[in-house]
Amino acid sequence: MDAWYSDHHLGHQGHTEFFGAQLLPSFELPVRAERVRDAYLMADLGRLDTPDDAGLAPILAVHEADYVEFLRGAWEAWRAIDRKHPALGMVWHAGLGMPKECPRHIEGQLGYYSMDAGCAIVAGTWTAAYWSAQCAITAADALGRGAPAAFAICRPPGHHAAARTMGGYCYLNNAAIAAERLRGQGHARVAVLDIDYHHGNGTQAIFWRRDDVFFVSLHADPHDDYPYFSGHASERGEGEGQGATLNLPLPAGTAAPQYLAALDQALDAVQASGSTAVVVSLGVDTFERDPISRFLLREGDYLQIGRRLARLPRPVLFVFEGGYATDEVGRNAVAVLQAFEGA
Amino acid sequence: MDAWYSDHHLGHQGHTEFFGAQLLPSFELPVRAERVRDAYLMADLGRLDTPDDAGLAPILAVHEADYVEFLRGAWEAWRAIDRKHPALGMVWHAGLGMPKECPRHIEGQLGYYSMDAGCAIVAGTWTAAYWSAQCAITAADALGRGAPAAFAICRPPGHHAAARTMGGYCYLNNAAIAAERLRGQGHARVAVLDIDYHHGNGTQAIFWRRDDVFFVSLHADPHDDYPYFSGHASERGEGEGQGATLNLPLPAGTAAPQYLAALDQALDAVQASGSTAVVVSLGVDTFERDPISRFLLREGDYLQIGRRLARLPRPVLFVFEGGYATDEVGRNAVAVLQAFEGA
Repeated sequence: MDAWYSDHHLGHQGHTEFFGAQLLPSFELPVRAERVRDAYLMADLGRLDTPDDAGLAPILAVHEADYVEFLRGAWEAWRAIDRKHPALGMVWHAGLGMPKECPRHIEGQLGYYSMDAGCAIVAGTWTAAYWSAQCAITAADALGRGAPAAFAICRPPGHHAAARTMGGYCYLNNAAIAAERLRGQGHARVAVLDIDYHHGNGTQAIFWRRDDVFFVSLHADPHDDYPYFSGHASERGEGEGQGATLNLPLPAGTAAPQYLAALDQALDAVQASGSTAVVVSLGVDTFERDPISRFLLREGDYLQIGRRLARLPRPVLFVFEGGYATDEVGRNAVAVLQAFEGA
Repeated sequence: MDAWYSDHHLGHQGHTEFFGAQLLPSFELPVRAERVRDAYLMADLGRLDTPDDAGLAPILAVHEADYVEFLRGAWEAWRAIDRKHPALGMVWHAGLGMPKECPRHIEGQLGYYSMDAGCAIVAGTWTAAYWSAQCAITAADALGRGAPAAFAICRPPGHHAAARTMGGYCYLNNAAIAAERLRGQGHARVAVLDIDYHHGNGTQAIFWRRDDVFFVSLHADPHDDYPYFSGHASERGEGEGQGATLNLPLPAGTAAPQYLAALDQALDAVQASGSTAVVVSLGVDTFERDPISRFLLREGDYLQIGRRLARLPRPVLFVFEGGYATDEVGRNAVAVLQAFEGA
C-alpha cells in the first residue's frame, strides 16, 4: 500500500505537556513520525508521497469553523501577550450548569477549546496539524480511485480531537476527516476501528449521534487512564447513532491473548455493521515499553494484529495515531501493515 | 466586630499552580491570612477567636457528599501512586455531549472535581479547608446570637468552589456555607455581595436556581480574566433563581471612581432584594499592586468601600477571599472593616 507523509510536522516541536501534575517535554515527539516513515520505506510496501492540498473544506466538514480559526490564530494571540513558551489550557468550563461563552482572552480560549493541559500550541502546530489532516485526506482519495489500502503517516495524531476541542496531542481528527471523505465517495457506511491504547473520544464524539459511521474502539479502561471521561462499554451512541458506537475497554496489564480476543470481537462488529470502507486509527502505544501506557503487547504481536485486520472489508485506510516508544514505534506500526498485506 | 481564625490553614502550603502555562509556586500563600489576622489585631476592632467545630453537616448543606469524600481522600490517593508533589487537575470532561462518570484513577478524579489546573491538593489541604469553613460557620452563628457584624479570616478562600468543583484556590465555599447557615437561622432571604477581583462563579453556581439567596458580584470582565466562563452581565439566574443573580463586570484598569459607582449599584440591588442578612465575599485583589489582577484600587480606596458597605442591612458577615499582594493584603482588608465600623 502507498503512504503519505509531510515534513511539515517537524515544525510542531519543543512543546510541553502537563503530565502527572508536572510540566514536561511532550512525549509526542517529531521523531515518532520519522521512525514510522523510515520503517515504511525499509519494508518496501509501496510508494511514499507528499499529500495534495485539498484546502480547508474537508477539515470543516468535521470541525467547527470557530475552532479552526482558534487553532490558526492561537500562537499569534499567545505571542501577543508576550508569551514565548508553549501555550496550554489552564482553566475549563467544568459544566457548572450555567451558560458557556467563548472568552476573548487567549488563556480562556485555550480552556474553551481543550479537554486537558497536555495539548500544547507552538509556532508550527497549526501547519503541522493541517498537513497531517491532508495526509489522511489524500490517502482517502487514493482509496476512492481504487486502491484497496493506504497509509497516512499523520503527525500530530487526531483521535482525541472533537469538533471543537483539542486534547491528548490531537488538534484535527485525521481519522474522522478521512471517514467523512470516504462517505463523500459514496460509501453508505464507513467504520472507524480505533486500536490506539487510549479511547478515541474525539472520534466518538464527532459520530456520537450518527448512524453512517460505525465507531469501534479497543483501549485502556477510562476508569484508570486517559481520557478518563469516555470509553465505557455502556456508551453506545445516541439518537440516530444509537448502537453505532462500540467500546471494548481493557484493564491495565492486558497482553496479547486478551487483546486479540477483543480485536476479534471488534472485527466481527465491523463486519456486521455493513461498512464498505474502514479507517483504522493505528496507535501502537499498546506496546509493553510504551512510556505512558500500561498494556503489554510485544513486537511480534503487531504481526498478529495485522493478520487479523486482513479480515476487514476493503478499502482500508490506516491513519497513524499514538505510540511513544520512539525506538520501536516505526517497526511496530509497520509490522501491522506488513502482516495486513501478507508480506 | 469579632473575628475567627484557625492556624490549621498553615498546613496548606508548598502548593503550586499551573499559571500562564507555567508551573509556579502558588500566589495563594499562608502569609496572606497571617497578615490579615495581624492587621485585624492591630486595628483593635474586636476579639479574635478560634472557630468551633460544627462538623460536616453545614458543609454538606452546600457541597455534594462525593466531592467532600474526594477532597478528604485525594492526597492519600495521590500518595498511593507514589506522587510527592502537589496534586493538580490535568484532564477535563469538556462537555463533548456524552455521559460523564467519575473515574477511579485519582488523576481522572482531579479533573472531574475541578475547573482548572491551579487548585493544588497537598497534605494539609483538607484540614485547612475544613477549618476555613468552620471560621465562616462560627462567625455566622455569632450573627445568629445577635452580633451585627463578624469577620471570618478564611484561608483557603472559597468563592470559586461549586457544589462539587474546586478551582481558583478554593475547595469549600465558605461564603455559600455561611449564607446557608444564615438561612437556617430564619432569614428568609440572604444576600451574598462578592467584591473579590474575580467572579465568584462557585457561589453563583450554588445559588443559580435559588431565589432565597441573592448573589451580586463586582469583578473583572470574564472575557479577559479568570474564571473566564462566567460573570457576564447577561447571567441572571435560572428557574426560581431568575433575577436573583446580578453581575457587574468591569474592565481591566478599573480605578476607584468606576469601581465605587458599580459598588453603589450593587448596594442598591442588595437593598432592593429584601435580604435581612448579608455575606460579603471580601477579596482585596482589586488592589493596584496585586500580582495577578488588573484593577487599580489604592489603599485609601478600601476605606471608601468600607464606608459604603455601612449602608448594608445588618447583620453582615465578612468572609475573607482573595488578595495576593502580601505586603498590603492585611491593611487593605482591615481598612474595609474599620471604615464599615466607622472606626
